[in-house]
Amino acid sequence: MNVLWEQVTDEAERRAVGYRRDFHRYAEVGWTEFRTSSIVARRLATLGYEVQSGRQVLDDKERMGLPSPDVLEEHWQRALQQGGDREFLERVKGGFTGVVGILRNGSGPVVGLRFDMDGVDISESRDPGHRPFRRGFVSINDGAAHACGHDGHTAVGLGVAEVLVTLCEQVQGTVKLIFQPAEEGVRGARAMVSAGVVDDVDYLLGHHLYSGWELGQIDPGRGGYLATTKFDVVITGAAAHAGGKPHEGRNSLLAASTAVLNLHAIPRHKDGATRINVGKLVAGTGRNVVCPSAHLTVETRGSSSELNEYMYASAMRVLESAASMYGCSLDVRPMGSAQSANSDPELAHRVREYTQGLEGLSLRPPDAGGGSEDFTYMMERVQQRGGQATSIGIGADLGGWGHHTAEFDFDERALGLAIRLLSGVTVASLRG
Amino acid sequence: MNVLWEQVTDEAERRAVGYRRDFHRYAEVGWTEFRTSSIVARRLATLGYEVQSGRQVLDDKERMGLPSPDVLEEHWQRALQQGGDREFLERVKGGFTGVVGILRNGSGPVVGLRFDMDGVDISESRDPGHRPFRRGFVSINDGAAHACGHDGHTAVGLGVAEVLVTLCEQVQGTVKLIFQPAEEGVRGARAMVSAGVVDDVDYLLGHHLYSGWELGQIDPGRGGYLATTKFDVVITGAAAHAGGKPHEGRNSLLAASTAVLNLHAIPRHKDGATRINVGKLVAGTGRNVVCPSAHLTVETRGSSSELNEYMYASAMRVLESAASMYGCSLDVRPMGSAQSANSDPELAHRVREYTQGLEGLSLRPPDAGGGSEDFTYMMERVQQRGGQATSIGIGADLGGWGHHTAEFDFDERALGLAIRLLSGVTVASLRG
Amino acid sequence: MNVLWEQVTDEAERRAVGYRRDFHRYAEVGWTEFRTSSIVARRLATLGYEVQSGRQVLDDKERMGLPSPDVLEEHWQRALQQGGDREFLERVKGGFTGVVGILRNGSGPVVGLRFDMDGVDISESRDPGHRPFRRGFVSINDGAAHACGHDGHTAVGLGVAEVLVTLCEQVQGTVKLIFQPAEEGVRGARAMVSAGVVDDVDYLLGHHLYSGWELGQIDPGRGGYLATTKFDVVITGAAAHAGGKPHEGRNSLLAASTAVLNLHAIPRHKDGATRINVGKLVAGTGRNVVCPSAHLTVETRGSSSELNEYMYASAMRVLESAASMYGCSLDVRPMGSAQSANSDPELAHRVREYTQGLEGLSLRPPDAGGGSEDFTYMMERVQQRGGQATSIGIGADLGGWGHHTAEFDFDERALGLAIRLLSGVTVASLRG
Amino acid sequence: MNVLWEQVTDEAERRAVGYRRDFHRYAEVGWTEFRTSSIVARRLATLGYEVQSGRQVLDDKERMGLPSPDVLEEHWQRALQQGGDREFLERVKGGFTGVVGILRNGSGPVVGLRFDMDGVDISESRDPGHRPFRRGFVSINDGAAHACGHDGHTAVGLGVAEVLVTLCEQVQGTVKLIFQPAEEGVRGARAMVSAGVVDDVDYLLGHHLYSGWELGQIDPGRGGYLATTKFDVVITGAAAHAGGKPHEGRNSLLAASTAVLNLHAIPRHKDGATRINVGKLVAGTGRNVVCPSAHLTVETRGSSSELNEYMYASAMRVLESAASMYGCSLDVRPMGSAQSANSDPELAHRVREYTQGLEGLSLRPPDAGGGSEDFTYMMERVQQRGGQATSIGIGADLGGWGHHTAEFDFDERALGLAIRLLSGVTVASLRG
Repeated sequence: MNVLWEQVTDEAERRAVGYRRDFHRYAEVGWTEFRTSSIVARRLATLGYEVQSGRQVLDDKERMGLPSPDVLEEHWQRALQQGGDREFLERVKGGFTGVVGILRNGSGPVVGLRFDMDGVDISESRDPGHRPFRRGFVSINDGAAHACGHDGHTAVGLGVAEVLVTLCEQVQGTVKLIFQPAEEGVRGARAMVSAGVVDDVDYLLGHHLYSGWELGQIDPGRGGYLATTKFDVVITGAAAHAGGKPHEGRNSLLAASTAVLNLHAIPRHKDGATRINVGKLVAGTGRNVVCPSAHLTVETRGSSSELNEYMYASAMRVLESAASMYGCSLDVRPMGSAQSANSDPELAHRVREYTQGLEGLSLRPPDAGGGSEDFTYMMERVQQRGGQATSIGIGADLGGWGHHTAEFDFDERALGLAIRLLSGVTVASLRG
Repeated sequence: MNVLWEQVTDEAERRAVGYRRDFHRYAEVGWTEFRTSSIVARRLATLGYEVQSGRQVLDDKERMGLPSPDVLEEHWQRALQQGGDREFLERVKGGFTGVVGILRNGSGPVVGLRFDMDGVDISESRDPGHRPFRRGFVSINDGAAHACGHDGHTAVGLGVAEVLVTLCEQVQGTVKLIFQPAEEGVRGARAMVSAGVVDDVDYLLGHHLYSGWELGQIDPGRGGYLATTKFDVVITGAAAHAGGKPHEGRNSLLAASTAVLNLHAIPRHKDGATRINVGKLVAGTGRNVVCPSAHLTVETRGSSSELNEYMYASAMRVLESAASMYGCSLDVRPMGSAQSANSDPELAHRVREYTQGLEGLSLRPPDAGGGSEDFTYMMERVQQRGGQATSIGIGADLGGWGHHTAEFDFDERALGLAIRLLSGVTVASLRG
Repeated sequence: MNVLWEQVTDEAERRAVGYRRDFHRYAEVGWTEFRTSSIVARRLATLGYEVQSGRQVLDDKERMGLPSPDVLEEHWQRALQQGGDREFLERVKGGFTGVVGILRNGSGPVVGLRFDMDGVDISESRDPGHRPFRRGFVSINDGAAHACGHDGHTAVGLGVAEVLVTLCEQVQGTVKLIFQPAEEGVRGARAMVSAGVVDDVDYLLGHHLYSGWELGQIDPGRGGYLATTKFDVVITGAAAHAGGKPHEGRNSLLAASTAVLNLHAIPRHKDGATRINVGKLVAGTGRNVVCPSAHLTVETRGSSSELNEYMYASAMRVLESAASMYGCSLDVRPMGSAQSANSDPELAHRVREYTQGLEGLSLRPPDAGGGSEDFTYMMERVQQRGGQATSIGIGADLGGWGHHTAEFDFDERALGLAIRLLSGVTVASLRG
Repeated sequence: MNVLWEQVTDEAERRAVGYRRDFHRYAEVGWTEFRTSSIVARRLATLGYEVQSGRQVLDDKERMGLPSPDVLEEHWQRALQQGGDREFLERVKGGFTGVVGILRNGSGPVVGLRFDMDGVDISESRDPGHRPFRRGFVSINDGAAHACGHDGHTAVGLGVAEVLVTLCEQVQGTVKLIFQPAEEGVRGARAMVSAGVVDDVDYLLGHHLYSGWELGQIDPGRGGYLATTKFDVVITGAAAHAGGKPHEGRNSLLAASTAVLNLHAIPRHKDGATRINVGKLVAGTGRNVVCPSAHLTVETRGSSSELNEYMYASAMRVLESAASMYGCSLDVRPMGSAQSANSDPELAHRVREYTQGLEGLSLRPPDAGGGSEDFTYMMERVQQRGGQATSIGIGADLGGWGHHTAEFDFDERALGLAIRLLSGVTVASLRG
């Protein structure tokens, strides 16, 4: 590009590293990104973006897997103490932790960029070999850690915000920077989509940093996301003394065990891949008490949304029958969901071309997938309305630490690469 | 007693052996005792008994586990060819194979004696060591054998009939000789009870010969019969090609397997012994076809009728839920049932006392039980109406051949002992 | 081609219809194709082919799912009475019902063509609307019917034999016409491969007539065959009286039910499609007897041979553990198997090109598959040795009768089309 | 008796109420009765008893269901702070919390009396209606409460100690007061028996206060205790990503579910009552992770020790097979056990007679049982050696609060009744 571009992206990269470490140190898990979102909102406002946040950008009814009010309140107070922005904190209270920054420059298409902000429910390593610990930005919030790189995504978002505001003279159209809560557990995107956040978006870009990919490797149009439904199940029976009155119990553990076996035995489907997992089962009170209630943590997946629905419907029939077999009641609560989706080849092609012009980036052969992402809800909405969407993978390896482990870290040089790529593609999209 | 008694019982014993071998040779299984019942009826009529048979003594609606009309017709024709009594055969057509002989002599109590007539669904041994084969009275009816001694019971019934008709001057009251079909599978008694056969009985006597008991050992008042319900289950789903369209099937075998496990897992009951058994499961068509239907052969038991009902109700809930889990339909058909029951101590005491006066008989210590008998329906009805009932065990060992095996046989000297005991107790009951 | 070609193929088509109806009338199921194979062998010999049959072309040890010696003998006698060729019948005795006809003309490549000969284990419809019944060639062998079109395949094979013998002057090389027994249940191909039948084949052609495809539609290179293993399982425990001694049994039905559920719950695999089916379960003796033995009819499949092996190994672990859980023994017997395979694009291309030059043929878009074929064993062997193989689908619809139903029939005009296509491709392959 | 008796028992009763409330306030659960046992030991020493405690009276190897060393240490420190006796605390360190007080007076028989000291793992009610809360002796130790009356048993033990020391002139022989830890979960008695504590006992008396029985009702010889084995199970498999690599997991939850169903399906036994219960199942980590490990909390019971062993052996086979079915390992840890036992009629008769002479006591008809008690280990040992043992039930109802509930309480007037009954029977046994 030009000198201005070099200056602004270098500067943005430098700042992004600082933002990333700050967010990392004060990691917040899904729906409690109070501090993070308030700082993002303040920064966007300072840069001159129109800022929408809280209930404006999240449909209350569609928020899934929300923590209890107590937990929300407690984490909000923590955010206040840890330097959140007081004004914006008020707007995200109660777990409405989404932010959208809008920059308009004449008529033209709308480019949306999505950044997810939440951490993972684990405690970060404090091993001396762990760089964030050694460098002093290890998470100080117990049971919360940026073990999937969303701190980086958010920092990239702020970097892109800086670059685009500087270059706005060069483009015609609108930029929407979408900072999403609760991607872990695929809980947050649907509520933003339902609030209309992407309804006017013509080109939608998402990205994800990957620790296992070499620095700078790019997949410009990821696909093969499995549609998924996450749900919690409670089977409630009745306790009884197992020695004295075994027949008086309604054994929720027998119901749950029957369900687990039959859930995993749901027939394969000819149309493609399906999955089911009962990840957790917690049941019972005492050794000598017929088990009165059982809690199951379940997910279904499918290589298409239809296949996922087939699995979910089958699972419901299994669960209902297993509960009724032991005279138990059944309670199912949705905890998250994502669609299957594929990137638009045309938009992915634009990213690919742009990749080839940037130093430090290289193309990576596509792989098979098997995971889920709730960015797919946004992609689906944009595609349904005739727009294009793509999901970009960006390599940031730093020794192969697995995502969602206590030792996760990534190469911060990827932040600058991501800022340049996303800003550049946005500018290119709005120029013509 | 006296000379007449000696003469008539000796003569009855001699004839009984002949009857037993005749019935043995032409063994007929439950509801097809056409030849047997017609010969019994003819003999009772000849002796001067008032004879009731067919629909008079069996309530159509309560007959359980009936063979198909084709089978009934085929066996009826066989009975005709094998020397059944043509007149009485007409009256038992369609599987109404019960007979009652009544002898009245003035006013007085009514003594009922019950004799079961059916064979077992197995093919008798034709090993040279098997006495019935060697002596030429092995069953010639394939798949039917008197492997439980009911041929003996029927012969004893005819012997008692002869003795009592001779001694009828000595008694005041009424004798009812009840020849019951289909005791195997506990299918026949309820229909006779429902037809009112024992409604006027004051003292009811049943007996059973036991191969495992030493000759002449007597248990005068058996008890501990388990109440039981026998039923057949069909679970119907839908076939599908297991390779090409596995998701289109409704897998009745998964439903049945789930049912089998959970039926056996029905909780124990604090009030006493319970049992359940899925004796047979036959399911499926081809290896590569999702199993469209499954047939289960089931029984529940309980040491009281309430416990058996607890098991049956639990089993129904398991079966319904297992079927609905795979979108299958469920069909349950009753195939037999019996009550729990205990002999009346007073009547058993009378039998015990009588036993002590007869040569060749000795008392046997009571045992635990674990089996079922549909004579319990008759006992229950008589006891409910204020009468007394007892079930008498009579030893007839001949080398310990197990009941319901192809080699079963018993010591025919037990026939005379049984005739003397039953006749004697009857006379004693009507004299005083 | 030319006049000779027209004459000989017209004549071959005419005869093929006659052969098809003859084989159809005397349908023989897998390993009992005594009459069929003896007639095929006689005809090949008459035409001048070198004929190999019996143990020459079938490795005894690799024959799977063989009927009992009694059944083999009985069906052999039937073949004798139904007009089988006495000389060749001697050579296929004992279920060695494979035939290979060889035609050599100088040096050149070897073209193999495979035709399967067996019927299906069902009884054919005798409804007046069923054409084979109306026309008098309905199967007279009870429980055996050509419900999958192999009668047509065999007739095509004889037609191709006639054409090629006439045209042999035009070609350089060798033709092997391979008539295979027991394709149903994928039982026969492995034994022919193991006997070396395709070891010298450079180009291998197989074909299948499809009732659901419009007449003349051709898929020149079918693929996506699922690898499969078919096996029978016997779980043997111990009987006990279910009322009196329930704890003395070793309940094979509980073991089998546990196995069925857990077999169907074997985890999905990330690498592709997997299948498992317990098509039949037959277990137990009497209602009141703890079930002493259970027989399961099982198959696994996978979209690659590795995936099928994963399913099979998992199934074995489930079965062994389920049996040991109830102190039961386990017996597993292989009943059939097939590999995954794909047609060689180059050879398929040659068939495609040839198709376009023939009247009455049209290309059909490829479909997904989901079935299994043991022709894959032959394809794999040829491909491993550097040769090429393809499996050709040929439409022969006559009202959409499903394969493996009692009403199956196909349009006999497909016989001529198949003879022309296969002969033509063979000649083209040997010409140069 | 006499004036001395009246004085000493009145005084002992008064003190016992105080002891009871003190123990109640500082409730300690099994193996952590540090404060309680040290105070008991101190009091016995003060009264002049020979005191044995710690490793002298508990066989280390036989202690079951011990808490972790951390927990033991933490509770020991708590005992120190809550006024435990420093000297005796040293002797019971590490969870050796048993005490035996011995009083010898010449030669004569040995009478043993057993008192259990542990609380229950629940938090006591702080409802104003709950008397211990209102009166200020509610447990201050979180998660520990005397909800089964063992505080009363211990207080009775100290009362008996006082009475017998005063009356020791009146008797010839030896008294052993056995204060046992960890009766809840039937964990402690076996270790005392194994240490030889009852090896010299001729007459053994145990007692239990019952909230559901009217004050003063006595069952002098309880029986029908179910033998039981308590054990914890860990099934360990391997985690895997449920979406991406489902086949790489070894699913411990499928193994556990299979085990749960089949454990409950262990066949009934003809010889009597059996029980099994999986009271708790805790398994898994995350929703999208194949469950790597499962923890089961299990108990078996039987109306005889043989029946319990049948259940336990069957359970082991089920668990081993279920684990191996999924390639999982199995770890089983014993957590408690008790024998079946019956009181000796002769000794019970002595108690019954004594009961009739005491004001405020009345006989209660025996009931069926269904529970378990590890006092049975002591009974068994004494009976095996030719001594006599009995277990005495004593009514102490105070509004029907169930044992093991947060609201449990009992009528403290029962303490005096128990002291009088046990002291009296002891004196009577040693007098003559």
